[in-house]
Amino acid sequence: MVTDLTPEPAQPLTTKGQATRERIVRAAAELMFRDGVAGTSTPAIRDAAGVSSSQIYHYFADKEALTRAVIAHQTQAIVDTQSELLGRLDSLTALRAWRDVVVQAERDLHCVGGCPLGSLSSELAEHDPSARLALADSFSRWSGAIRDGLQRMIDRGVLRADADPHKLSLAMLAALQGGLLLAQAQRNSAALEAALDAMIERIEQHAVAPGG
Amino acid sequence: MVTDLTPEPAQPLTTKGQATRERIVRAAAELMFRDGVAGTSTPAIRDAAGVSSSQIYHYFADKEALTRAVIAHQTQAIVDTQSELLGRLDSLTALRAWRDVVVQAERDLHCVGGCPLGSLSSELAEHDPSARLALADSFSRWSGAIRDGLQRMIDRGVLRADADPHKLSLAMLAALQGGLLLAQAQRNSAALEAALDAMIERIEQHAVAPGG
Repeated sequence: MVTDLTPEPAQPLTTKGQATRERIVRAAAELMFRDGVAGTSTPAIRDAAGVSSSQIYHYFADKEALTRAVIAHQTQAIVDTQSELLGRLDSLTALRAWRDVVVQAERDLHCVGGCPLGSLSSELAEHDPSARLALADSFSRWSGAIRDGLQRMIDRGVLRADADPHKLSLAMLAALQGGLLLAQAQRNSAALEAALDAMIERIEQHAVAPGG
Repeated sequence: MVTDLTPEPAQPLTTKGQATRERIVRAAAELMFRDGVAGTSTPAIRDAAGVSSSQIYHYFADKEALTRAVIAHQTQAIVDTQSELLGRLDSLTALRAWRDVVVQAERDLHCVGGCPLGSLSSELAEHDPSARLALADSFSRWSGAIRDGLQRMIDRGVLRADADPHKLSLAMLAALQGGLLLAQAQRNSAALEAALDAMIERIEQHAVAPGG
């Protein structure tokens, strides 16, 4: 789960070049999270990254290319972190602990900003086909990580084999995305908590030993 | 549940004025659904509505005012329609029929566009505080309609009194919003269906007579 979705640059980058490129992507990701893709200008990225405009154009042919690099960056930051947590799921207690980490992270942000990947998807899906495909892939990797965690719980005998990890993982990711969207609008985590709790309770229906 | 959230105009409008105002709002809503708020210009609204720019400025002080009218319009179109369906819930069969209507509507749109209210929220929540408040209110009315439907099922003896209609309604709306967001990214309704099904199965845990 550490596939780098970033398109390969035309030429291999030097270590310094790689660092500059990463600084640009990181600055763009922060600005796009705050202001949206449409609201993020090249001069703003230039100033935030402390580089020149020509350096940005050196690494990225256009804004679409930079946006795809931001999607790859956010996917690594979010999905890979989540995958690590989800890969260790071995009990319903661990699943509830994952839920608490997600809710606490949202509370730490005061429910501002929503999910970076969800927001990018909502903004770009109808206007940037390659961004939509990249985001669809990110979401598939994310639900795949949840599915793997649930499968691990089946393999370990925590959940019965009649659980459908694929369908439950899609449902859980939807609950998470919708919960984050509502948290952003309502500036509280009630819907996020309710959605994750309902999904965990649904999964608990498949528990071999209730409460485990 | 038919409260008009549209701010009252300074002077009462004539029938003709009301019709012109509605034509502007309808055109703006369609454009904003397709291109986002930032991607929708006054000239585009003017052309789509077949009015002059001065007519738009006559009815709306600025783009924020027009955006709030669009939020009110979409809230009426979506939440009031949903409320009518949800107000008639009297069985788990009816709940599943509501789920089928939602999924079919998304399929009819080929999973394009996402939820108009969800998309507006994702775009505006951090940059237009009054829009965020209006959208938070719209979401509360929507989850309130779901809650009322579930409460009706408790009152009719379909669900046991230990069901928590408020928490379940927040979870259901989150499942719906996240399902629509993922459907838009992935251009299929699998996550939407999985999320709604999981929530209905969760609610069925409170059923007095399983399967009813």
